[in-house]
Amino acid sequence: METTFDCIPCLVRQTLDSVRLATADTAIQALVLRRVLAMLSGMSLSQSPPALAQKIHRVIREASGCADPYAAVKREFNAAALALYPKLKAQVATAAAPLEAAVRLAIAGNIIDFGAFSTVNRQMVADTIANCLAAPLAGDVGELQQRIATARRILYLSDNAGEIVFDRLLIEQLPAAKITVAVRGGAVINDATMADAVETGLADLVTVISNGSDAPATLLEDCDPEFRRCFALADLIIAKGQGNYESLSHSRQPVYFLLKAKCPVIAAHIGCRLGDAVIARSTGNAVPETDDGRPGRSLCRGRPAL
Amino acid sequence: METTFDCIPCLVRQTLDSVRLATADTAIQALVLRRVLAMLSGMSLSQSPPALAQKIHRVIREASGCADPYAAVKREFNAAALALYPKLKAQVATAAAPLEAAVRLAIAGNIIDFGAFSTVNRQMVADTIANCLAAPLAGDVGELQQRIATARRILYLSDNAGEIVFDRLLIEQLPAAKITVAVRGGAVINDATMADAVETGLADLVTVISNGSDAPATLLEDCDPEFRRCFALADLIIAKGQGNYESLSHSRQPVYFLLKAKCPVIAAHIGCRLGDAVIARSTGNAVPETDDGRPGRSLCRGRPAL
Repeated sequence: METTFDCIPCLVRQTLDSVRLATADTAIQALVLRRVLAMLSGMSLSQSPPALAQKIHRVIREASGCADPYAAVKREFNAAALALYPKLKAQVATAAAPLEAAVRLAIAGNIIDFGAFSTVNRQMVADTIANCLAAPLAGDVGELQQRIATARRILYLSDNAGEIVFDRLLIEQLPAAKITVAVRGGAVINDATMADAVETGLADLVTVISNGSDAPATLLEDCDPEFRRCFALADLIIAKGQGNYESLSHSRQPVYFLLKAKCPVIAAHIGCRLGDAVIARSTGNAVPETDDGRPGRSLCRGRPAL
Repeated sequence: METTFDCIPCLVRQTLDSVRLATADTAIQALVLRRVLAMLSGMSLSQSPPALAQKIHRVIREASGCADPYAAVKREFNAAALALYPKLKAQVATAAAPLEAAVRLAIAGNIIDFGAFSTVNRQMVADTIANCLAAPLAGDVGELQQRIATARRILYLSDNAGEIVFDRLLIEQLPAAKITVAVRGGAVINDATMADAVETGLADLVTVISNGSDAPATLLEDCDPEFRRCFALADLIIAKGQGNYESLSHSRQPVYFLLKAKCPVIAAHIGCRLGDAVIARSTGNAVPETDDGRPGRSLCRGRPAL
């Protein structure tokens, strides 16, 4: 999806949140803010929001000298989610519909998003778990369950640290031999990387690969060849979070998005309410954006829909 | 007060809200957004937030060709407030402490602020009236009442359209011969101008003057000589709203600010909680900002404190 005007103040806010984590030096904070404002003033809005965010977070890391501003946040939320994990695993095991319960919890974990929010606390996580287990889902969980039952190659695109512990609950319900989990290729916001997959034990359960990109999303042309091959060969892709939705909503691959709709722009694009727990399907009917902002060819364009 | 980093995303959001009211042409909206981002990337943050906002809203008006983007909003809220006026006037008249009740209602009216909020609705106004009449005030209403009792020349700096009907409730409690009300000199956001003072009947009750400036605040060096003379001669200045606070918080004149603290930056500067109904006093202890961002001389600097 393209960047809307409403994304711009949000990206400026995200810049400020992030540079404050990266450095306490207000001169560098001011420098970064000015650079990002100048960048945004000239950027093509035909790029997706996370394509802009990728460039912004590179500026933040380079100017501050901090390679991973959210390192402490990621450790904190991995640990907090691991502390919840045994209880949540038991809830899935005893649920009337364990797979659906695991889907709901995977969506709940998507609240741990320091891109959408300036901060996330444990009460928000607890409230979201309770809400996601009880409230109606926006989307068809039955269709997803059918796809899971018949899929031969499942690619699971993870989103954030902490959240991947919630993903683990769902991944444990899937056939381990058929599943590959992808993490980001470099630090960006609080997105999960290989270190988080290892830290939370996910890498011991299933194959985990890096997508090779430091975008907070899946910008295919920015991803490395191994990842793109997995993406092209998968007959089911489960994609977590807003960034993956923003970058893949029009994919012709069978992508099922699991997310909390945390911003009005995403909610409007999906056609749900702000705050909804969403299962959405890629539309496959439009020219996806490339990471350089020009309308481009998706890697899977022209391939028959699976 | 100086502009904080947190003001920047808020000013970008305000730009977007305003240009959407000014024109439906998305090409002009994009042009304005880009121009404002470029301006902000180079602006001195030693200016007050409304000094930046003044420049931004000039860009919006010039690029869109719309001289008054909030004209309809101002008419709507003047009418809505006038519809409430008889009931509120009766509440003041029957209150145990009519002057305090009028102060509280004047503060409640400050919720009608399309700079701080993307939108304001009547439910917000109704809720704020109820809250302001019941909740503790942050500040000393007794001190203000004493100043009112002894003042010889009162200058009342109004803020927004709609809100000035609430101001009228307070102004009716003051000695009419001693009071001058000032409105903005040109259209900016939903700030009240002479047209609003006439439309709501305020101009029939007391002397109303324009401050000669199109800033959403009182930037003294931008105001015209008649206004500055009134400001210098007043022995009590009642200043409504965040913009007047941002531009006059350090004044050496005896300024009493009445406002709802609608943003965390203002709340932190005052030392109150977000949402508080505030009576605050100018500190008189610092070099105020000028409208061009250089530390400057206030017109009243060096005058003995009254």
